Amino acid sequence: MTEVVIAGIGQTEVGEHWDIGLRDLAFAAIQGALKDSDGLKPQALFAGNMLAPNLSNQAHVGVLLADFAGLKGIEAVTIEAAGASGGAGLRQGYLAVASGMVDVALVVGVEKFTDKVGPGVDEALSTASDSDFEAVQGMTPTSQAALLMKRYMHEYQVPADGFAGFAVTAHANGVANENAMFRKAIQLETYAKAEMVSDPINIFDIAPNADGAAALVLTRPDLLPSGFKNPLVTIAGSAASTDTLALHDRKDILYFDTAQISAGKAMKQAGRTLDQIDFFEYHDAFSIYAALQLEAVGFAIKGKGWKLAEAGEIGIKGRIPCATMGGMKARGFPGGAAGVYQAVEATLQLRGRAGTNQVAGAKVGLIQSLGGPASTAVSHILTSLD
Amino acid sequence: MTEVVIAGIGQTEVGEHWDIGLRDLAFAAIQGALKDSDGLKPQALFAGNMLAPNLSNQAHVGVLLADFAGLKGIEAVTIEAAGASGGAGLRQGYLAVASGMVDVALVVGVEKFTDKVGPGVDEALSTASDSDFEAVQGMTPTSQAALLMKRYMHEYQVPADGFAGFAVTAHANGVANENAMFRKAIQLETYAKAEMVSDPINIFDIAPNADGAAALVLTRPDLLPSGFKNPLVTIAGSAASTDTLALHDRKDILYFDTAQISAGKAMKQAGRTLDQIDFFEYHDAFSIYAALQLEAVGFAIKGKGWKLAEAGEIGIKGRIPCATMGGMKARGFPGGAAGVYQAVEATLQLRGRAGTNQVAGAKVGLIQSLGGPASTAVSHILTSLD
Repeated sequence: MTEVVIAGIGQTEVGEHWDIGLRDLAFAAIQGALKDSDGLKPQALFAGNMLAPNLSNQAHVGVLLADFAGLKGIEAVTIEAAGASGGAGLRQGYLAVASGMVDVALVVGVEKFTDKVGPGVDEALSTASDSDFEAVQGMTPTSQAALLMKRYMHEYQVPADGFAGFAVTAHANGVANENAMFRKAIQLETYAKAEMVSDPINIFDIAPNADGAAALVLTRPDLLPSGFKNPLVTIAGSAASTDTLALHDRKDILYFDTAQISAGKAMKQAGRTLDQIDFFEYHDAFSIYAALQLEAVGFAIKGKGWKLAEAGEIGIKGRIPCATMGGMKARGFPGGAAGVYQAVEATLQLRGRAGTNQVAGAKVGLIQSLGGPASTAVSHILTSLD
Repeated sequence: MTEVVIAGIGQTEVGEHWDIGLRDLAFAAIQGALKDSDGLKPQALFAGNMLAPNLSNQAHVGVLLADFAGLKGIEAVTIEAAGASGGAGLRQGYLAVASGMVDVALVVGVEKFTDKVGPGVDEALSTASDSDFEAVQGMTPTSQAALLMKRYMHEYQVPADGFAGFAVTAHANGVANENAMFRKAIQLETYAKAEMVSDPINIFDIAPNADGAAALVLTRPDLLPSGFKNPLVTIAGSAASTDTLALHDRKDILYFDTAQISAGKAMKQAGRTLDQIDFFEYHDAFSIYAALQLEAVGFAIKGKGWKLAEAGEIGIKGRIPCATMGGMKARGFPGGAAGVYQAVEATLQLRGRAGTNQVAGAKVGLIQSLGGPASTAVSHILTSLD
């Protein structure tokens, strides 16, 4: 297998970018990643995007970004797997370089929520679920996650503030991340008093939809310029898996099969075991997703994922640090770009450049990007080379 | 480079499938391809689709198809590059197998136009162009192609019926293709009397939007079951390229750079030259596209592509047979599935199983899938193994 490394990273602040469009947003991240990669020239662009055809009347996003970035001529394509579009884009970029056909790949995640406001956004997000059997009933991803969370709380006797630890950790980590949307720590009491969105999901159990773009430059180690300045980060494992699209088709709705399968495959490829993973970037679009991922990947037994958060074990100095730069809850949820943000943040950790959020001695990170309620899961193991 | 072969093909009739949905349509093609591949089990599904998020309120099409086909657990992703989504899906499937990470890949192209009718369809198709600078002006792909064709006719003094040969050839070839939408031959006079759509594009210069699904099973030759029954077809070359998204940003709007670049790269990889190509499946969504592709690829000099059609040189027994199963004009244009249909039809030719449409002794085929006015071009060289 050809080794693939992350040579450059770029990202924009996550938030409401009313003043710039899809292309400008993505360009900022692309520019950052290309500069960071010390002048590597991409031959291919993989754009992770979910919502532009609906929110921005724009398909063909791969070409749009390549064109606007002055990369005319290279190949470009859009990769879509709902909320996992960013992770899936990274995987396609990885496969392209691993195949030997592409020397340098640019992976870009971008989402521009503010191109539309109101019910149109929920409608667009609902295209992630089964249109004929779920969305048609009026179910949105949020109301679906609420049903999941309610069932979980019932099955495992979780108290009303049992999920607070996820938001408390995320917001604590967001404070020092200058690209995070929310940079204010919250307390347990803040969670307890929070407004309800879709019972039992309160405003702290759901990540904010937001604009954002992140980019990665992938290549083979032998193609790096001599005297390459960045500490090297390798994609040691890459895997994806799918479940039923509709939640009601599953035998056990409280177990994310795909999170388990894809993480297991990625770890196997990387030759790493669970206890060697120094941090985990989960897909905390909803706190219930985070809990179920911790269980499926194996950091907690079934029904006990929330306990890890409650006990503070997911903090930067905890047993398994999660959402180390604020996660989707505090950094913000830029849809199809979210999975690329995970990779950018993990690279900062593995380079030892995560500042006050640095996980001490981080050498192996697991990132996991979900589409729908883990209908898709894409997992990558990133490692520092030394 | 790992060798990649097409082990199985499947397709549905192209037309207006009012009675079945996206998943059923795709399933018919998947079932056909899996059966044809002699029981190979795919680990990954690449769905080429452009319009489902807009026309069917359905993103996450990769998962939908994997789930409905009983392939739960495999990885699946949607590949989008506007009209080139099918060709781009084939390329991603190719890269996945070539990387050694995926043993058997299923490439599915599917489009369900009849999920919406009226202006919504044109609006959805217009997401292929630059939303901020083209679509916002009310330009549709058809009106844009009309401008291109008008300019071409002016520059090269093409008579009013100069493009008739494209439609005459396509309809002649569609007669014997049981999956074609239109199976009636037309005459030069039919073209001359045809209703105008967007001057100078008449009803025979534009391919009909239609529902359809096609599928391919890709693998490495060493993984084929012993005694494998199908004549082997190899993907000998694969390449993609992008141009500016907006037509007005180009120096010369009458030359399809990407068609030239991607075909050139694919031929180089395959070690083949133009004179070795036995047939060419172009992207005749509009007859002007076909003319410009013939020129960019090199079968005609600039301004003379239409002459090949006029002289009958693109017929089954001509110098360079094109649209051998009816092309998009007569077989129909199933959007993001079109590029996969090209591969299915080329495979039939290279297996020697194209019936009355067989190009005698066909050993090397070029297929080319376009997104927008060649803003994307994806080219593949397919060859028979003997």
